[in-house]
Amino acid sequence: MAEAGHIRITEVGPRDGLQNESVVVGIADKVAFIDHLSRSGVAEIEVSSFVSPEWVPQLADAEAVFAGIARTPGVVYSALVPNERGLDRALAAGVDKVAHFTAASEAFCQRNTNASIDETFERLAPVVAGARAAGVPVRGYISCVVMCPYEGPIDPATVRVVAARLLDAGVQEIDLGETIGVAVPADIQRLYDGLAGLLDPVDTTLHLHDTRGTALACAAAAMDLGVRSFDASCGGIGGCPFAPGAAGNLATGDLAYFCDRMGHATGVDLDALFDAARHISAVLGRDLPGRVFRADGKIPTTPARR
Amino acid sequence: MAEAGHIRITEVGPRDGLQNESVVVGIADKVAFIDHLSRSGVAEIEVSSFVSPEWVPQLADAEAVFAGIARTPGVVYSALVPNERGLDRALAAGVDKVAHFTAASEAFCQRNTNASIDETFERLAPVVAGARAAGVPVRGYISCVVMCPYEGPIDPATVRVVAARLLDAGVQEIDLGETIGVAVPADIQRLYDGLAGLLDPVDTTLHLHDTRGTALACAAAAMDLGVRSFDASCGGIGGCPFAPGAAGNLATGDLAYFCDRMGHATGVDLDALFDAARHISAVLGRDLPGRVFRADGKIPTTPARR
Repeated sequence: MAEAGHIRITEVGPRDGLQNESVVVGIADKVAFIDHLSRSGVAEIEVSSFVSPEWVPQLADAEAVFAGIARTPGVVYSALVPNERGLDRALAAGVDKVAHFTAASEAFCQRNTNASIDETFERLAPVVAGARAAGVPVRGYISCVVMCPYEGPIDPATVRVVAARLLDAGVQEIDLGETIGVAVPADIQRLYDGLAGLLDPVDTTLHLHDTRGTALACAAAAMDLGVRSFDASCGGIGGCPFAPGAAGNLATGDLAYFCDRMGHATGVDLDALFDAARHISAVLGRDLPGRVFRADGKIPTTPARR
Repeated sequence: MAEAGHIRITEVGPRDGLQNESVVVGIADKVAFIDHLSRSGVAEIEVSSFVSPEWVPQLADAEAVFAGIARTPGVVYSALVPNERGLDRALAAGVDKVAHFTAASEAFCQRNTNASIDETFERLAPVVAGARAAGVPVRGYISCVVMCPYEGPIDPATVRVVAARLLDAGVQEIDLGETIGVAVPADIQRLYDGLAGLLDPVDTTLHLHDTRGTALACAAAAMDLGVRSFDASCGGIGGCPFAPGAAGNLATGDLAYFCDRMGHATGVDLDALFDAARHISAVLGRDLPGRVFRADGKIPTTPARR
């Protein structure tokens, strides 16, 4: 079992979560959501995406959101950028880190980014150069590290090739995205076996979806292998675009609860996180799938208890 | 990681699940539910409970349900019996196995069974004797093996004492109930460490609740320790009486999916299981929490695909 230690949580609800919600959330509600999250103790918040507004209308207000949030010292505020134009906007908004998408599946890459894998690397080069000049680190996402909804199972050797290209391109962090939420611990083992000698588990971030209830089992397996950085989404917002009504990202509360009881420090205060989840649940007008939030967070505790 | 092998699944939805639903389900709908489950490939179905009808009105029709179901050869049809009177009714109904409750928490035992732990053993003795005379095995449930909602954390040494008493009493199977759904893999490790030398993991059944999303992570840890028998509830029906709106039992589909992808055979056909989940979801008039059912089971596949 993994030794106790610190687990770093990146909150992706405002970007990956809201991008997959049908309700379009206004600027003030997004700002309030992120300000709640800033008080929850997460290490990083993926605030928005500087993609074309026509491409992702839910996140067309990225500049206004960045301008509106109250930044907590020590929290990293990041954003997705698809290309150099997006980087320029992100830098002007004062991001602390940028993230760029590629995939281990050609079909998924084409549908998700409107580019081939090769083209995502062509777009990445000026992003890395510009970010480096600005002193901003780059996270490289690899989607579909276990399964693609169009191509089926992904060979870990393919993930390794894409990871090697990201390292060559100069990204500071590689985020392995189990986009579809099908993985079990055996898949996580095979994934990291495939990266052996190239990339240590401790140098990766793992992005899990809880579509089939397996996310925490996969996180536990990853922690056993040495992974110490995970993405999660407040309340599990986001859903799964390939399975309407299904759960989406691993819920931040579920991950933080799990880490806490396993003896891993995350810095997350569950009561503060529940404030964020109650806010966004009310804005979205629906129950959220996060299990710990449903069990322990839907009724606010009194200030005295906190 | 656990070696591939066979995992035995006991479906507890008709008893533990329906007992915790507010909707009272009619006899015909229960029979149809169980008949669907019989076709799903689960090894055992806990059909009902022969407790006093005043105590659990949802299950007051145990005799009629047993009389109505179509039994599939090879499937074990079991029922809960609190005492000798319940055993007589269960034997008359033709049960294949009976189950009896005790707990590792005195406060929970009192509230759940209206008896002290000592008194549950007094009631158990004639149940074991009568079951043995009838050639029917007895499962002994221990509730609250990790946490009690009234007493808090439970010492694994306490579970060991209760397990030893159950073995002395002559039960054929011990079922460890993580009743509250708080456990993480470290708890499962401590639980089985506490049983070392008394009871091998392979000789236990583990009963998990997914209240906080940790059930499959705990199941994975248990499989690594050698556990090969688990309880689960179709679609995750049942809820949690201590957290309204929260998830209940580990969903059978989530467990069967997990086992299948981990290379463990369960005999469960997910499509047939989804038929059972769709039926009971319609009867209960609500969405079910089971993650795999939500992702893959809500829309029937065509017979051709099956």
